[in-house]
Amino acid sequence: MSFNSWMNSIAEAGRDLLRRSKGNKDEKNIKTLCADLCSNKGEAMGTALACAVVNAYHAMNEQEQLKFFKLLVSDYSPRSDAIVHCADAYKAEPSAKNLQALSKAVEPPRQHLFRRINMSPTGTPTLVGMRADLQKYLKDHDELRAVDNDLKHLLESWFNRGFLKIRSIDWKTPAHILEKLIAYEAVHEMNGWEDLRRRLEDDRRCFAFFHPALEDEPLIFVEVALTHGLATAVQPLLAPKSDVLEQEPADTAIFYSISNCQEGLKGISFGNFLIKQVVMELREELPQLTQFSTLSPIPTFCRWLNKELENKESTLINSKERKLLAQIELENWHKDPALAETLKPVLMRLCAHYLHNEKRGAAPLDPVARFHLGNGARIEQLNWMGDVSKNGLKQSAAILVNYLYKLNKVEENHEAYINDNVVACSKKFKTLID
Amino acid sequence: MSFNSWMNSIAEAGRDLLRRSKGNKDEKNIKTLCADLCSNKGEAMGTALACAVVNAYHAMNEQEQLKFFKLLVSDYSPRSDAIVHCADAYKAEPSAKNLQALSKAVEPPRQHLFRRINMSPTGTPTLVGMRADLQKYLKDHDELRAVDNDLKHLLESWFNRGFLKIRSIDWKTPAHILEKLIAYEAVHEMNGWEDLRRRLEDDRRCFAFFHPALEDEPLIFVEVALTHGLATAVQPLLAPKSDVLEQEPADTAIFYSISNCQEGLKGISFGNFLIKQVVMELREELPQLTQFSTLSPIPTFCRWLNKELENKESTLINSKERKLLAQIELENWHKDPALAETLKPVLMRLCAHYLHNEKRGAAPLDPVARFHLGNGARIEQLNWMGDVSKNGLKQSAAILVNYLYKLNKVEENHEAYINDNVVACSKKFKTLID
Amino acid sequence: MSFNSWMNSIAEAGRDLLRRSKGNKDEKNIKTLCADLCSNKGEAMGTALACAVVNAYHAMNEQEQLKFFKLLVSDYSPRSDAIVHCADAYKAEPSAKNLQALSKAVEPPRQHLFRRINMSPTGTPTLVGMRADLQKYLKDHDELRAVDNDLKHLLESWFNRGFLKIRSIDWKTPAHILEKLIAYEAVHEMNGWEDLRRRLEDDRRCFAFFHPALEDEPLIFVEVALTHGLATAVQPLLAPKSDVLEQEPADTAIFYSISNCQEGLKGISFGNFLIKQVVMELREELPQLTQFSTLSPIPTFCRWLNKELENKESTLINSKERKLLAQIELENWHKDPALAETLKPVLMRLCAHYLHNEKRGAAPLDPVARFHLGNGARIEQLNWMGDVSKNGLKQSAAILVNYLYKLNKVEENHEAYINDNVVACSKKFKTLID
Amino acid sequence: MSFNSWMNSIAEAGRDLLRRSKGNKDEKNIKTLCADLCSNKGEAMGTALACAVVNAYHAMNEQEQLKFFKLLVSDYSPRSDAIVHCADAYKAEPSAKNLQALSKAVEPPRQHLFRRINMSPTGTPTLVGMRADLQKYLKDHDELRAVDNDLKHLLESWFNRGFLKIRSIDWKTPAHILEKLIAYEAVHEMNGWEDLRRRLEDDRRCFAFFHPALEDEPLIFVEVALTHGLATAVQPLLAPKSDVLEQEPADTAIFYSISNCQEGLKGISFGNFLIKQVVMELREELPQLTQFSTLSPIPTFCRWLNKELENKESTLINSKERKLLAQIELENWHKDPALAETLKPVLMRLCAHYLHNEKRGAAPLDPVARFHLGNGARIEQLNWMGDVSKNGLKQSAAILVNYLYKLNKVEENHEAYINDNVVACSKKFKTLID
Repeated sequence: MSFNSWMNSIAEAGRDLLRRSKGNKDEKNIKTLCADLCSNKGEAMGTALACAVVNAYHAMNEQEQLKFFKLLVSDYSPRSDAIVHCADAYKAEPSAKNLQALSKAVEPPRQHLFRRINMSPTGTPTLVGMRADLQKYLKDHDELRAVDNDLKHLLESWFNRGFLKIRSIDWKTPAHILEKLIAYEAVHEMNGWEDLRRRLEDDRRCFAFFHPALEDEPLIFVEVALTHGLATAVQPLLAPKSDVLEQEPADTAIFYSISNCQEGLKGISFGNFLIKQVVMELREELPQLTQFSTLSPIPTFCRWLNKELENKESTLINSKERKLLAQIELENWHKDPALAETLKPVLMRLCAHYLHNEKRGAAPLDPVARFHLGNGARIEQLNWMGDVSKNGLKQSAAILVNYLYKLNKVEENHEAYINDNVVACSKKFKTLID
Repeated sequence: MSFNSWMNSIAEAGRDLLRRSKGNKDEKNIKTLCADLCSNKGEAMGTALACAVVNAYHAMNEQEQLKFFKLLVSDYSPRSDAIVHCADAYKAEPSAKNLQALSKAVEPPRQHLFRRINMSPTGTPTLVGMRADLQKYLKDHDELRAVDNDLKHLLESWFNRGFLKIRSIDWKTPAHILEKLIAYEAVHEMNGWEDLRRRLEDDRRCFAFFHPALEDEPLIFVEVALTHGLATAVQPLLAPKSDVLEQEPADTAIFYSISNCQEGLKGISFGNFLIKQVVMELREELPQLTQFSTLSPIPTFCRWLNKELENKESTLINSKERKLLAQIELENWHKDPALAETLKPVLMRLCAHYLHNEKRGAAPLDPVARFHLGNGARIEQLNWMGDVSKNGLKQSAAILVNYLYKLNKVEENHEAYINDNVVACSKKFKTLID
Repeated sequence: MSFNSWMNSIAEAGRDLLRRSKGNKDEKNIKTLCADLCSNKGEAMGTALACAVVNAYHAMNEQEQLKFFKLLVSDYSPRSDAIVHCADAYKAEPSAKNLQALSKAVEPPRQHLFRRINMSPTGTPTLVGMRADLQKYLKDHDELRAVDNDLKHLLESWFNRGFLKIRSIDWKTPAHILEKLIAYEAVHEMNGWEDLRRRLEDDRRCFAFFHPALEDEPLIFVEVALTHGLATAVQPLLAPKSDVLEQEPADTAIFYSISNCQEGLKGISFGNFLIKQVVMELREELPQLTQFSTLSPIPTFCRWLNKELENKESTLINSKERKLLAQIELENWHKDPALAETLKPVLMRLCAHYLHNEKRGAAPLDPVARFHLGNGARIEQLNWMGDVSKNGLKQSAAILVNYLYKLNKVEENHEAYINDNVVACSKKFKTLID
Repeated sequence: MSFNSWMNSIAEAGRDLLRRSKGNKDEKNIKTLCADLCSNKGEAMGTALACAVVNAYHAMNEQEQLKFFKLLVSDYSPRSDAIVHCADAYKAEPSAKNLQALSKAVEPPRQHLFRRINMSPTGTPTLVGMRADLQKYLKDHDELRAVDNDLKHLLESWFNRGFLKIRSIDWKTPAHILEKLIAYEAVHEMNGWEDLRRRLEDDRRCFAFFHPALEDEPLIFVEVALTHGLATAVQPLLAPKSDVLEQEPADTAIFYSISNCQEGLKGISFGNFLIKQVVMELREELPQLTQFSTLSPIPTFCRWLNKELENKESTLINSKERKLLAQIELENWHKDPALAETLKPVLMRLCAHYLHNEKRGAAPLDPVARFHLGNGARIEQLNWMGDVSKNGLKQSAAILVNYLYKLNKVEENHEAYINDNVVACSKKFKTLID
C-alpha cells in the first residue's frame, strides 16, 4: 500500500509537471523535460521529472516515438570533438586522470538520461518497453542502433544474474501471472486455461525468472515434465493426464518448452542460467531424478532441407531419396505408415547430419542446437514423430531432439565446443550419421 | 528454502572448485579463478566460478586483499596501446563502429569481472564489502583509486533509486534488522534495546531504504519524531515517553537522525531521496502534519570557531568576545546559567554566520548544511542548548539547527542554491546575522 | 513446508496405525480406532489416531459411511439411564455440582470424538465434509438428525464470526482459489475463466470469508458491481466491459450474487456478516459510494404464482388476468414487446404482493426476501426484465428486486421485522401494491 | 490494512453505542448491552454491540469486574425450574426432541453471550483476558467457579489442537513477539535481550504455538538446545556460546524450558502436543538427531524433603543422614567439594525415591514428573549439580532430571502409566533406588 500510494503521489506530481508544461506558451515538451531531468533540477526533483518523462513517453504515438528516439541520437550522443580532445590528451599523457576524462567523453549522455528515468517507480518497465518499441524502427533507421546498444548495455547490467529471482509457478500462482504464461508461450501454444492447468499438474513443473523492478512479469520460463525415461514425443506430454496411477516415481526431467517473455530484453541471455538452476532445484526436491534432458524442436531443419533439395549438386541426397522426400509436401504424409516408414531412415540421417555438421560460421546452423550445445549439453537422440502438430511437421518433418544436461560434463562440453567447435553427442546419435 | 538450498549447492560447487584448484600442483589461485571467470568457462560455469572467487575473497587476510586489489590494477585495467589505437581510428573516421571500439577499449576489464562475480548468490554484498575493504588501502596506494572508481560506478548503477525499496521500521520488525539500527546509528548513539524501543514508539517513525540483493541490510535510515511545533532540543526526544496523554495530534515531523549504513556505498547518495519519500509517506499516513523539518547537528562549527579564535586578525570577534568564548573550554559551562546567558548572543550570531557565510568553494563549509541546502531545504532556526550531550557541546557548543522542507519550495531553493549559491533561510534566522 | 512435512509425518503415522490394524486378526476397524481415540490412548497418541480415523473415513464408500453414522448414534449418544439418574439428583438438590454432572450426562459423547478427530491436521475439513456427506442419508434415516445437530452445533462454535477472515478476491488471487468461485457460483453461472475475469475487473469487487483451518477454501462470497445509480438488470453487469470511459466515479455498490460454498456448513449463517462488512470495506476504499443495494432473484415467485393460478377462488387475479398470465408459458414471450407491455402491470403488482404479503408463518414466503429483510434491508424497487436468462424467466418472470442496505436503518428495520413482522420498503414499491 | 480499518470502524461503532447509552438518562450499562447482544438486536447489530461490550469490559476497575462476573451468575445461569421441567419430560419420554430440550435448558446462557462477544474483532483475546481476570476472584467467590468452568469449556473447544499453528522462533522473529518470550519465560529467567539472543543462536531452537485469533501472542513455547549426548546441567546451556568450533553435528535435542503464556488458558493443555510436534519438526530438519530429552527441574523435591526431615518416624532417612542433610541449609554448601561429595549419594537416592515412589493419589507427587510421565516419556537420569542457581538450590538441591522421549515407546509408557501407574525409567535410574 505504502508503495502504491507513493507511486500515486509521484505519478500525480509527474502529471502536474506535464500539464503545467503543456499549458505554457512555450510548451515544455519531452525535449525540455529530458533536459531538465539531466540538469540540476533532476537532482532536486528527480522522481517527479522522471515520472513526467515516463508519462509523456507512454502518451506518444509511433511518429512521436520515432522523433523521440532521433532526439536521443541528436542530443544525447557523445560529442565527437570532446572525444578527440580527450583522446589527444590521453595519447600525450596516458594518466589515470586523462583516462577518466576520455571515459566520460565516450559515455553517451543518454546513459545518464536512462538512469535518471529509472528514478520513476515505473522506470525500469518503461525502459524495457522503450527498447521493445525501438526494435520496430531499427530496420529503417540504422542510426538508432547506437541507442539500442546503450539500452541493451544498461539493461544487461541491471538484469545481471545476481538480481534475478527464480520462482516456481504452479496452480497456486496468482492468475494475472498465469495468464502471461499463456500469452508468452512460444514453443507449444496453449489454448487457454485448461491447457495451462495440464502443464501445472503434479507431474509437471514450471519455473521462471523474475526481476525485483519488474514485479509479476516473468522474464523467461521453462516447462518441465517428470517422466520415466526420455520423453520422445511432445503430444503425449500435452495431452490430458492419464488416470492410471504411476507405479514408480519419475526418474527423468524433460524440459519441453523454454520461452523468453520480454522483447525489450532481447539478446540478454537468461536461458542458460535458468536451465542449470532448475536442474539444481529439481535435484533438491526430487532426489530420485537421474536424467535431465530437453525435448526440443529443430526449427530450421526443413528450411535447410528444402535448400538442399533445390541444390541439384548436393551429394547428401541421392536421386531416389530426392523423389521420396518430395512427398513430405503432401498433407498428412505422416499418417501413411508405409510412406512414413520409408521416409524415416532418410530424414533421420539428414536431420542428424544437419544438427551435427551444418554450420553458420563455426557454430551449428540450428539456433536451438547452438543454444544448448553452447550451454554444455549434448545431443542425445532424435525422435521420429516427436511433434506431429502442423508446426512440427513444417519445421522439422515431425522430428524432435533430446539435448541431455549432465552437470558434471557441462564444463568439458562447453570448452570443447567453444575452443574446438566439437558438437557433443551420444554414440547412438553418432550412428545416424556414419 | 529453495533459494537457500540453491545457494548451498552453488556455494558447495564453488568450494569444490577452490579445493580442487588448491590441491593441484600449479595451485589454481584467485588469479586463475578470476581469469577463468572472465573467460568462456565463466559462461558455462559462471555461478560456480563466481562462488569460488567469492569464497576465496572472504578467506583473504589484509595482505592478500591488498595483493588482490593490485591484481585488479595490473591485470584488469584498460590497455593503453589499445586505447590509443582505437582513438586514432576514431579520429580518422568518427563512425559509430569506431566509437564502439573506443568505448570498449576504454572500459576497464574489471567491470566485466565484477559483473561476473555478481553471478554468485552473495555477489552483490561481496562487492559492497570489497569496496568497504578497499577504503583502508586508498590512502597509501593511490593507484587503487581507479578500482574504487570502477566499483563506485558499478554500484551507483545497481543501487539506482529505481531499485530501492522503502520500508517502515517499527517494533514489529525482525530483531536481526533492528539490531543493525543500533549498530549503524551515527548521530545520536543508542545504548541497547531500550533506547531503540523508545525510537519506535507510536509517536516516532523510522524508515529505511533496502535493496533486493542486500536483503535485510538497511542502506540508510532516518528517525522521525512526531511533535507539536518545531522540536528545539534532542534530549527530550530521546528521553522516555511521558505518560501525559497528548491532547492534540502532532502537526510536525522532525527528522532528528539520518545514518548511512554501508561503507561500501560511500559517495552514493540516498539521503535526498529518502527524506522526500518519507515526507510523502507521512503526508499519506498523517494528513494533519503541516511541517517537515530536521533537527540537525552542526558538526564542524566549533572546529571553525577555534580556528577563528586563533586568527588574531579576525574581524568577526572582538576582544571582549574572544575572552568570553575562551570559557566554553570549561567543563560544564552550559550548566552555569549566568555564563550561558552571556555566551548565547555571541555564539548564536557566530553560528548563524558560520552556516550562512562560511564556504568551501561556493558551497557551505558545514557538511550537513551542504546536504540539506543542496536538497532544497532552508535554514529555519538555531536552537540554543539543543544538544547538551558531550558530543553536542564539543561539536557545536550545544547548538542545533532546523532545516525546513517545504516540498513546493524545494525546486526553487535548489535552483537558487546551485545556480547562484543562495542559502535559503527564514527571516528569523536572518536577523541573527544582521 | 514445516507444516506440510508435519502433516506428512502425521498422516504417515496414521496410515501405519490403520495398516497395522488391518493386518491384525481381529481387524482394528474404524470402530476400534474411534474407541481408542476417545480413550487414554487418544491423549498420548492423539494426532496419529485422529489421522487414522480421518484416513479410514476418506476410504469409505457410501454403505460404510452410513454404517459409520449409525455407529455414531448407537455408541456415541448420551446414555438415557445416566441422564435420568443425574436429573433426579439435580431435582433433589439443584447444586452446581449436580448441574455439572447433568450437563455432562446430556452431552453426546460424539462431541468428544469430533473434537479429538480435529487433532488431525485435516480434521476440520474432514468434519465439514462429513456433515456434507451426512445430508444424503438424513431423509431416509431420521435417527441421524441428532448427529447432524451435534456436528452443526460444533461447527457453529468453531466457525464463529470472530474466527472468519475476509479476503478481497481479484485477478491477482491464486488460480486454485479462483477456480472454486467458478465451481461454487450459485446465482448467475460462470462459463469459465473469461466470465470470471469480467467479474474481477476494476469496476467489480469480490469478497469472501475464509476460516484459518480451511485454508484457501472460501465459505461464502459476494460479487459486487460498482455502478451509477441502482442497477436494474443483471445481463448488462455480466456482459463484457464497455470501452467507453466512465466520466464519473461510481456512486452505488450492487451486490448481485451471494453464494455459499460449503454444504457441510449448511444452516450456519455467514451472509449477514459478510454483507455488512463488505459495506464497511467499500466505504473505506471508495468514500464516494452513497448507496449499497442488492440486485436479487425472487426464486419462488413463479411457483407461488402457478399455485395461485390453479386456485380458482383466488381474489388476487381476475379472469382476464388469468388468461393473460397463461401466456408466460410461451417460450420467448418476453421478446414480444406488445405482449410484455400488457403483462408488465399485472406481474409487477402480483410480484410486489408476493414479496410483501405472502408469508410462511410470520416471515416472508420468499427465501431471499426473508434473508435480506431479516438483515435489516428494505425492498427498494422491482425491475422488469431484470433477468432474461432461462432461469430468470422461469423463477420470476424475469423480474429482479433491489434490497437496499442503509447501515443507519438496519437496526430499526430489523427490530420492526422481528418484533412486528414489518416488511420495510420504499414508497415507490408500496405504490405497486396499493 | 483492510482488517485494521474494519476493526477501527467496528470499534468506533461500538464506542458510539456505549457513549450514546451513557448519555441516556437510564444509562445503558453493561447489563443492558449484554442483554441487547443476546437478543434479536444482537443478530442485526452483533459486531457493533459486541464491541460495545468489549470496550465496556476493558474500562472496568476490579470492583466493576467482580460485579460483572456476578451478573454472569445471576442473569446468565441455566434456570433450575426449566431444567427440572425438561428433565421430567425426558424421563416420561426419552425422545430425541425431549433430549434436545433438556440439553438446551442445561446450557448456561452465558455460553451464548460469550459466543456473541466473540463477534468483536478482539473478542477472543478479550475472553481469554476475562478468564485471566476471573482467577483473582475465585478464591473468595466460590459461585464464580461455574463461570470459570463455562469459559474454560468454550476456550478448550476454540483452542482445539486443530486450530493451533506451530511457529519456529528465531532471531529473525519480530521484536514484539520476542519480548513476550522474555516476559513469559517461567523456568530459567532471561535478563534481557542478550540472554534471549543466546537462546536463539544456531545451536538452539525455539518453537511456540499460536492461535489465529490471538495473532502474535504465543500460547506456549519450548526452548531446545542441540547437544552432544544428554545435557546434564543448565548453566552451560545458558552461558555465552563457546568459540570452539564443534567437530561433530549435535545428536541430541534437549528441551530445557517450557513456558505457558496465557493465564486465561489455564488448565487447557498444550505442552503434550507441542513437545511431540517439535520432536517431529526437529527430526525433519536434523535427521542426525538420535535422542530427544528434557532437562527438567524437580520443583517440589526440597519441600517434600523438608517434611520428611520433620517426620521423626520416617524410615527413609537414618539419623546420620538426617544430620548431614541439615547442612544444605548452609549458604553455598554446593561450593564445598568435600561436603557436596558426602551429600551426593544421600540426596540422589532420596530424589530418585521422591520422583519414583512419592504420589498424590495414584500419580507422582512432582508436577513436572506427572506431566512428562503422563505424556509417555521415561525418567532417564538424575544430574547432580544440574542447576546451581539460587532457585535450583532451593527447589531441588541443584539436582535436575532428564525425561527421555522415544516416540515409539510413548504409547506403551502412557498406557502403563494410566492403567497401572507404572513410572517408566531407565535401568541406571532404577539403581539409585534399589
